[in-house]
Amino acid sequence: MPEVIYLNGQFVEPEHAVISINDRGFLFGDAVYEALRSYDGRLWAMERHLRRLRRSLQEIDMGYVDVNIIAEVIERAHRRSEFPNASVYLQITRGVQPRKHAYTHDLVPTVLVMVRDITPMLARINWEGESVMTAPDVRWKRCDIKSTNLLPNILAHTMAIDGGAHEAVFYDAEGYVTEAASMTVFCVEKRCVLTTPLGEDILPSITRQFVVEIAADEGMPLREERVSLERFRKAGEVFLASTSHEVCPVTKVDGRPVGDGTAGPVTRMLVEGFKKRVAAADDGVRE
Amino acid sequence: MPEVIYLNGQFVEPEHAVISINDRGFLFGDAVYEALRSYDGRLWAMERHLRRLRRSLQEIDMGYVDVNIIAEVIERAHRRSEFPNASVYLQITRGVQPRKHAYTHDLVPTVLVMVRDITPMLARINWEGESVMTAPDVRWKRCDIKSTNLLPNILAHTMAIDGGAHEAVFYDAEGYVTEAASMTVFCVEKRCVLTTPLGEDILPSITRQFVVEIAADEGMPLREERVSLERFRKAGEVFLASTSHEVCPVTKVDGRPVGDGTAGPVTRMLVEGFKKRVAAADDGVRE
Repeated sequence: MPEVIYLNGQFVEPEHAVISINDRGFLFGDAVYEALRSYDGRLWAMERHLRRLRRSLQEIDMGYVDVNIIAEVIERAHRRSEFPNASVYLQITRGVQPRKHAYTHDLVPTVLVMVRDITPMLARINWEGESVMTAPDVRWKRCDIKSTNLLPNILAHTMAIDGGAHEAVFYDAEGYVTEAASMTVFCVEKRCVLTTPLGEDILPSITRQFVVEIAADEGMPLREERVSLERFRKAGEVFLASTSHEVCPVTKVDGRPVGDGTAGPVTRMLVEGFKKRVAAADDGVRE
Repeated sequence: MPEVIYLNGQFVEPEHAVISINDRGFLFGDAVYEALRSYDGRLWAMERHLRRLRRSLQEIDMGYVDVNIIAEVIERAHRRSEFPNASVYLQITRGVQPRKHAYTHDLVPTVLVMVRDITPMLARINWEGESVMTAPDVRWKRCDIKSTNLLPNILAHTMAIDGGAHEAVFYDAEGYVTEAASMTVFCVEKRCVLTTPLGEDILPSITRQFVVEIAADEGMPLREERVSLERFRKAGEVFLASTSHEVCPVTKVDGRPVGDGTAGPVTRMLVEGFKKRVAAADDGVRE
């Protein structure tokens, strides 16, 4: 079965999956998105993604979108796909309007859901340890909003890929690591996990939430603390986290091995801890 | 005659002016653009816009696009429109690819040109003096690239419109004015025109170039200097500049009158100087 595409109220074949050139998502990046996945036919962390979506919409003045209806659309599209392990991409734009910067408040949002088999993508990941390249973070100051203004992300990410790495890790103007171009990143110092504090400079990553919860459950030390690029490069362990990559070891930063060049013990515990949560379907929101 | 739309090799009716949902312009804002206008059937400052376009393309790793071919397309679309005074919008995206962050280097760019009658838009401008609202500049650090990552711009601009003003003027984290959300902005202190120095924080505005040249030709003092929000608010004159707005007086900043609340003498001289350049079709690139 090919991908499933839902666009503005109906399921469409790829060749009919088109939007107007006057869609503000196309002209201005006036849009937010979410990317989910399923395990064995069950959508993972749906409620958490919907909460983040609701917040993104509010922050771009689209709080009027009914996220419950969006949730139904996601579930319908996912069921229709029949992939046991699917990636689900959702994008909501402000809608279609002859091009001008100012939007009116009466536009009908464009809603796109794409469901694909995630297996081919997972096969490209090196689960024993990926390599990353560092790059200056030139993104806007509201990276907590999951918007489609992703030009700096895709430029840095592609530069990393072209340089033989898997992902780019951003550092800000003060030299502190923020997050990766399409994922979040952690390092480990003296067995303590370090992660950038939530703020307007990073996305509140769902898998980051799970890592924080697993560390707490397992009694592993974890601190939310800004880490300089220098410290990051010397860290004993580094790992990435995202919906698709779960917890994924990093064994090379800027061409140099991390620690002894293999996945470290803290990372491995978190990899296992995440797998246990998935096996138990334990993805509910904790207050 | 309605608008003229050129899309990927052909002229199309508005209802057929559609792009794939997998266009990277739609998914990632992976695109650059230009906005030109014509006077009496002649495209204004074409060579300057093409230079800026070439640079934008290079900076987003699309230097392979042949800008001479783009120029022909713009000219064909403009001729076809028959509007004596047209706005010409050009957008080039990296192309269509199943969604993933990393792009490949073999994509066929999407090329869109839209030509509209600019008259209705010009009728909405208050040529005697617009009002502006100031807003924090949360944009990315490469505003010198004319990309479609415009979410912070359209949010600030619409907030200004909704607040009864015409445009938003950005100030950076250090409190210095950068530029306006869709235009450039100047102020005048003791008859000296002040403008933000070119850099990665502002777009190299074409109309800004003309203002600098006119000031030099007329022997008017002009300094490229960062101006704090405090100084900006106390300036004797303020004006906007853009392709559509030419040189346009600002008579209100954040609800307070600028100077005596009418367009000042320096602004008026520049308004006239710009009109003279247009009348003389004097838009060639100066080295």
